[in-house]
Amino acid sequence: MALTKEQRAEITAQRNTPQETSRPTVPAMEALLFEPLEVLDHGFIRVVDYMGDDSAIVQAARVSYGKGTKRVSEDAGLIRYLMRHRHSSPFEMCEIKFHVKLPLFVARQWIRHRMANVNEYSARYSVLDREFYMPDLTQVSTQSSTNNQGRGEALDASQAQEVLDILRRDAAQCYDDYEHMLLPENGGVARELARINLTLNMYTQWYWKIDLHNLMHFLALRAESHAQYEIRVYAEKMLEILKAWVPQTAAAFEEYRLGSYSFSASMLKVLRRLLAGESVTQETSHLTKREWAEMMAVLENKAL
Amino acid sequence: MALTKEQRAEITAQRNTPQETSRPTVPAMEALLFEPLEVLDHGFIRVVDYMGDDSAIVQAARVSYGKGTKRVSEDAGLIRYLMRHRHSSPFEMCEIKFHVKLPLFVARQWIRHRMANVNEYSARYSVLDREFYMPDLTQVSTQSSTNNQGRGEALDASQAQEVLDILRRDAAQCYDDYEHMLLPENGGVARELARINLTLNMYTQWYWKIDLHNLMHFLALRAESHAQYEIRVYAEKMLEILKAWVPQTAAAFEEYRLGSYSFSASMLKVLRRLLAGESVTQETSHLTKREWAEMMAVLENKAL
Amino acid sequence: MALTKEQRAEITAQRNTPQETSRPTVPAMEALLFEPLEVLDHGFIRVVDYMGDDSAIVQAARVSYGKGTKRVSEDAGLIRYLMRHRHSSPFEMCEIKFHVKLPLFVARQWIRHRMANVNEYSARYSVLDREFYMPDLTQVSTQSSTNNQGRGEALDASQAQEVLDILRRDAAQCYDDYEHMLLPENGGVARELARINLTLNMYTQWYWKIDLHNLMHFLALRAESHAQYEIRVYAEKMLEILKAWVPQTAAAFEEYRLGSYSFSASMLKVLRRLLAGESVTQETSHLTKREWAEMMAVLENKAL
Amino acid sequence: MALTKEQRAEITAQRNTPQETSRPTVPAMEALLFEPLEVLDHGFIRVVDYMGDDSAIVQAARVSYGKGTKRVSEDAGLIRYLMRHRHSSPFEMCEIKFHVKLPLFVARQWIRHRMANVNEYSARYSVLDREFYMPDLTQVSTQSSTNNQGRGEALDASQAQEVLDILRRDAAQCYDDYEHMLLPENGGVARELARINLTLNMYTQWYWKIDLHNLMHFLALRAESHAQYEIRVYAEKMLEILKAWVPQTAAAFEEYRLGSYSFSASMLKVLRRLLAGESVTQETSHLTKREWAEMMAVLENKAL
Repeated sequence: MALTKEQRAEITAQRNTPQETSRPTVPAMEALLFEPLEVLDHGFIRVVDYMGDDSAIVQAARVSYGKGTKRVSEDAGLIRYLMRHRHSSPFEMCEIKFHVKLPLFVARQWIRHRMANVNEYSARYSVLDREFYMPDLTQVSTQSSTNNQGRGEALDASQAQEVLDILRRDAAQCYDDYEHMLLPENGGVARELARINLTLNMYTQWYWKIDLHNLMHFLALRAESHAQYEIRVYAEKMLEILKAWVPQTAAAFEEYRLGSYSFSASMLKVLRRLLAGESVTQETSHLTKREWAEMMAVLENKAL
Repeated sequence: MALTKEQRAEITAQRNTPQETSRPTVPAMEALLFEPLEVLDHGFIRVVDYMGDDSAIVQAARVSYGKGTKRVSEDAGLIRYLMRHRHSSPFEMCEIKFHVKLPLFVARQWIRHRMANVNEYSARYSVLDREFYMPDLTQVSTQSSTNNQGRGEALDASQAQEVLDILRRDAAQCYDDYEHMLLPENGGVARELARINLTLNMYTQWYWKIDLHNLMHFLALRAESHAQYEIRVYAEKMLEILKAWVPQTAAAFEEYRLGSYSFSASMLKVLRRLLAGESVTQETSHLTKREWAEMMAVLENKAL
Repeated sequence: MALTKEQRAEITAQRNTPQETSRPTVPAMEALLFEPLEVLDHGFIRVVDYMGDDSAIVQAARVSYGKGTKRVSEDAGLIRYLMRHRHSSPFEMCEIKFHVKLPLFVARQWIRHRMANVNEYSARYSVLDREFYMPDLTQVSTQSSTNNQGRGEALDASQAQEVLDILRRDAAQCYDDYEHMLLPENGGVARELARINLTLNMYTQWYWKIDLHNLMHFLALRAESHAQYEIRVYAEKMLEILKAWVPQTAAAFEEYRLGSYSFSASMLKVLRRLLAGESVTQETSHLTKREWAEMMAVLENKAL
Repeated sequence: MALTKEQRAEITAQRNTPQETSRPTVPAMEALLFEPLEVLDHGFIRVVDYMGDDSAIVQAARVSYGKGTKRVSEDAGLIRYLMRHRHSSPFEMCEIKFHVKLPLFVARQWIRHRMANVNEYSARYSVLDREFYMPDLTQVSTQSSTNNQGRGEALDASQAQEVLDILRRDAAQCYDDYEHMLLPENGGVARELARINLTLNMYTQWYWKIDLHNLMHFLALRAESHAQYEIRVYAEKMLEILKAWVPQTAAAFEEYRLGSYSFSASMLKVLRRLLAGESVTQETSHLTKREWAEMMAVLENKAL
């Protein structure tokens, strides 16, 4: 199981002692608080704290706009306006803190988002647990033939099973040897050195804190279809949390970011010709094949 | 008065409806929440929200240290350890949000701290209020003869009064003309243009959100004796808030940062000679006059 | 004139001693180097240093892609690909440093871009020059009736002239009093205090260093039609410099950012109905009036 | 060898075509440029580009200080002054770009420094080379008994050899299986999935770009005795590069940072008692044992 007994006890203790606060409070988040949401085979994500709500965004924005525009918009309208015009600073006024358990190779992608605060479990101080990520059979896929960085079709069952067997055997072997090297009778190698024998599917954990603007930037990149499956499932879980936390913001995010499409200058020219009734082909479009295909998929509402 | 009637009403409304939360809550901060603390003649600083407390720092640090060191330290000891060794990431796990009203020239210094989130009142959207900073008579001082960027002695009363008269007259004149230019019958100049006529002692306001680590960095620079008086008074108010919010962290901050002194390599050599009983003068110290004076002041526990 | 005699001499000295380097070098930038490009009435922008070129972006990107995709794209194609897919890290591998002279109210907008390095002239250390920004008569405009933060029509000539007279008189008065207060015979007020009497159209100057990715983000916001005129002219000058520095990147930036348009989820639905031959009006579009007008302007290739 | 043949050819090509530039140029850096400096068994660090030099720092600082203080200090003195007073912004005006080859577990520590730009080799796009880090026999050490995150004594030779045998066997096994899974005849698993089988001692590479202020912050933490050996050797190499690049800054950095020691408020009290001739012991010092030992080591000029 993902959480240790001590962590479980700590969570229960926090749960049992609600206190009064005058800070903005979101009942749907209180219900989620501390509870680990399972991701992958041993991972989880849980909300540890949050600051602000939809109205905190509006409140901060109204400081900017002052008296001049108070009447102009209702709250949801203002949030949509801010999102549409990429006014990021009011969204930076909300903050969220997660406790995440995730495989090392996912952590390596995740950490590239620099606008966040992180406290990771240190394998220099402590021994890592014997937990490594094993994909579902359905996730064992070939290299994509069209996408240099992605996956294609699932392998046939026996080949997929062989892959899992390899992954499990090698991770186990490496972990066994890690433990072996740490033993005093074998010399008691320093933890910081022994851990270099571990494989990238080992689990780590961290506290991760980020403001709402940067969280949405993270989600726009990582909940997207080109993101690697193993990080995407974390992003999708956070997208659900986003909806519980700031529902108006989440709706605007889906309207203006996740569900939007940016037409390049050349695509706009093609669009105008199409709307004028002209018949345009890739050859006459001045777009690359890939751009043409992508634009057509958007216009025909097909998955990219 | 610093807050508008509408702002007052909003504050009262928030005060009246405390809600239950399972998040870390600090009673001393709940008491402070929303209440404007007066700074300078028309400014204020008020806490709008906070995330975390002393134990949230410990909790995050323990994720890093994992099982290995749980028993090692009690909480206060761990916080002191983190501060002493400049382990900044656990302190980044707390966040605070202020609403600040401050003169423009203070805002210009303040904004240089980039690791924060800001929403400022926009004079493109709204008309600025007729409020400008007038120093106390006692704060009207000469250019320091020793510090190129600081103040020396107070002016004599009549000269100081003349300065105040000038400041008041010019600010009033500029503001009157600002209002004049905005009037439709005078052409109704755009707000973004009319405001360029205003003086740097006008008040602005903003929401400012920052994590605890960066807040302490701000305070170390701005609560310090070389900081300009008008920003230092804000920093001193925030230092009080820090003590209410995270008392153990604030104590460690005073021990290891505010009350500490860094001896350079050459100063350490002098120190060793002094402790060996050698008589050292500035001339034989290889320190500059300024460094020598500063080091002596520290050793004799005098103000720098 | 914008530069002092000493600054001129320094520039000439640097010009006269070219040295050999193996670093990426851009002849068009060498021609621009150190030379102040005039902006507004007393401002300027000049390139002080630069790091990298179009091929440095490609080189960094190829580290990411490794051997696998070397043959895939030529350089210009790779740059377009990176821009289209918002792969920002290769663009962060180039850096540019400017020396800028600009009015204080422009500096206040500019500094909000935090991902840059800044060294500003300090009015605590030094006395500011008697230089303030006076708009052209054609730039003295009314508050926009449609845009809460922008300008509308130019004022009629006599009203505009009155505005200029006011701006000039007040700035002069404030500066005269600033100098007066600094004089020893008037008490010799500290510079940090005297300067609070100055108006926001005073000029300041700074060194400003930023990476190419963040520069383009700055330009996308500040070379845009909604940006205030007085910062837009600086952005437009930097856009010219961009074309000299990294021409392939600048072309891709115009194709995929400046000349692009992002259709929201709801706009995409309208687009599909239009392409299917349906007649859609604002009322049947589910778009707000403003969104509808903006989308139509894009499709009809009119200025927004 | 660390560099591929193609990379070698590229380096030679760049070397052969020096061009003229008016930018600040440092002959000692031109000599270093592009040349890989070996680190660990397969790693390297090479300077790919640099911006600025000691005088560029002075030039930027003089913008801040303006006319008022031009004569005050010579250049080296000004750099020392800036370093001593932690005026970081002038140091941010220089930038350096490295190409680094390093083991994954080192990369994981390194990337925690967020104020830098990174382009890493992507194992989603490309296949990793068969290169993994094997420590020297002398570096195979026990867990430190005094430092929870460090190493103690070297293991005896036979136990150390066993550790190396394990590390080599497991890394080889994991890499063999990685290659096996990638083969089309075995299903051709996607690269992004196959790589999760690799161990943390595998080598990766990246371009890493950072400003001088943040580079020194990195070096202060990573060239320090508590840093893990395998990252420290990279930091030490960069410290040499620093001396070639900005010798005056490097000297000030050693004087005021690397060779300095910060006395806490309580330590200062002890110091004053000692200088007054009082005999102080740990028990009467109000310092913890660890603090006392550290302070005594500094005063006696012993390694910590």
